[in-house]
Amino acid sequence: MTTEWKSVRLFVVPSVIYLFHNNVQFATLTYVDTSTYQIMGNLKIVTTGILFRIFLRRKLSNLRWMAIVLLAIGTTTSQIKACGEASCDSLFSAPIQGYMLGILSACLSALAGVYTEFLMKKNSDSLYWQNVQLYTFGVIFNMARLLVDDFRSGFERGPWWSRIFNGYSLTTWMVVLNLGSTGLLVSWLMKYADNIVKVYSTSMAMLLTTVISVYLFSFKPTLQLFLGIIVCMMSLHMYFAPPNMLVDMPSPTKAATENLKEISVERKTDS
Amino acid sequence: MTTEWKSVRLFVVPSVIYLFHNNVQFATLTYVDTSTYQIMGNLKIVTTGILFRIFLRRKLSNLRWMAIVLLAIGTTTSQIKACGEASCDSLFSAPIQGYMLGILSACLSALAGVYTEFLMKKNSDSLYWQNVQLYTFGVIFNMARLLVDDFRSGFERGPWWSRIFNGYSLTTWMVVLNLGSTGLLVSWLMKYADNIVKVYSTSMAMLLTTVISVYLFSFKPTLQLFLGIIVCMMSLHMYFAPPNMLVDMPSPTKAATENLKEISVERKTDS
Repeated sequence: MTTEWKSVRLFVVPSVIYLFHNNVQFATLTYVDTSTYQIMGNLKIVTTGILFRIFLRRKLSNLRWMAIVLLAIGTTTSQIKACGEASCDSLFSAPIQGYMLGILSACLSALAGVYTEFLMKKNSDSLYWQNVQLYTFGVIFNMARLLVDDFRSGFERGPWWSRIFNGYSLTTWMVVLNLGSTGLLVSWLMKYADNIVKVYSTSMAMLLTTVISVYLFSFKPTLQLFLGIIVCMMSLHMYFAPPNMLVDMPSPTKAATENLKEISVERKTDS
Repeated sequence: MTTEWKSVRLFVVPSVIYLFHNNVQFATLTYVDTSTYQIMGNLKIVTTGILFRIFLRRKLSNLRWMAIVLLAIGTTTSQIKACGEASCDSLFSAPIQGYMLGILSACLSALAGVYTEFLMKKNSDSLYWQNVQLYTFGVIFNMARLLVDDFRSGFERGPWWSRIFNGYSLTTWMVVLNLGSTGLLVSWLMKYADNIVKVYSTSMAMLLTTVISVYLFSFKPTLQLFLGIIVCMMSLHMYFAPPNMLVDMPSPTKAATENLKEISVERKTDS
């Protein structure tokens, strides 16, 4: 458990990035429509790959890069608006600022993820102590924001802490429980797996949610959903399957052993 | 130049398969709409891979199988109807017979391709002599068909050969020239490359045509066209790039050489 300020202060960084990220997200939405926004969100799969390579110095094979791009394409394919759906002309007709902000947002999101992974892996501190540091700064920033809002409205509805649980129903508590568990699982992923595993799991969760809503809410399945799922599955296999399962490669150990035998024979005849 | 009947008669087979195939195609179209028909046409990429493996005994790596499936998905993605286009509800609402016939059609098309490759490669006969045999049977079958039509209509418009060039304009001759050159190029591909190269070239031609029509006929490019093109490009790279470019594999020759050195040293100290 590292408690030095030199180490603790690093946990401020993700909070600051997320603060920027949230503001950029809202700015993006003032330029682009929700469909374009949703589709641009898949860009963070690719930016995560790039920043993962640059900042965490993890070399990825050509095939793994292709798998990452395919994952982004697969999720995008599954989100193509169904033929005949209303209000679809607006897709990709936003001003250039919208796209620039969308790209910035994807970079910030990836940066926060990559930085969190760096923090979680940089020492062998307990996952819980790391979480405490990470979330404490998040809580401080959010409290500050609420206080600023209170000052702006002149405390006419009282301070935020007096109404923090207003309107909480069972559903609200379930959502809180859900988000809390997700947070713990994600930090676990960041420490023991990596950002790429995280983008795969969020993408798969998204597809699973769509498939389940076909059954639960009689959402009409589309051809693009089906195609997108296959592309994501292929991408998953390409990224995580051992290379010798994917391509027929000459087994190096076998070649080496054969070589050894050959030379042993040579030695015998020598002496 | 093999002229024995035992060898020549084999060239009847592709003609017979195409005869069946054409009839199955028309039967399919009585059940399914044109969009479904076009999309099911991509199935022949996968059936070609399967029959290529079974009949020509060409082993394909796991990655190459994935590339073939991705090619079919990429072309299908590019054909997804644009949002807002008319008459799109009908997609995949045909009776089961339509799909069965579509699958049969894909198998027959693949079978004809694979059989032609087998014929072209089975001996070192000249490509032109092989083409003569292949097309002679095609011509015979088509002439027979025209004659049957003439008999059915009681020769009221005269025999077919008296009106074979009726209505030929410059455009018609251009189409004939185009189809003729395509035929020669395909048989060249079958002899010196293979069926998989052929499916890649036809798919790429299809995508190129769509891209060109964006410029020439101000066809509106869609997100799905863009995604489909990327998926096909990835598939192309996955299939044809050398495996050591795709995955980081330990170079077997290097490992063997290192082993050799190690043992050589051992030998020196031995003596």
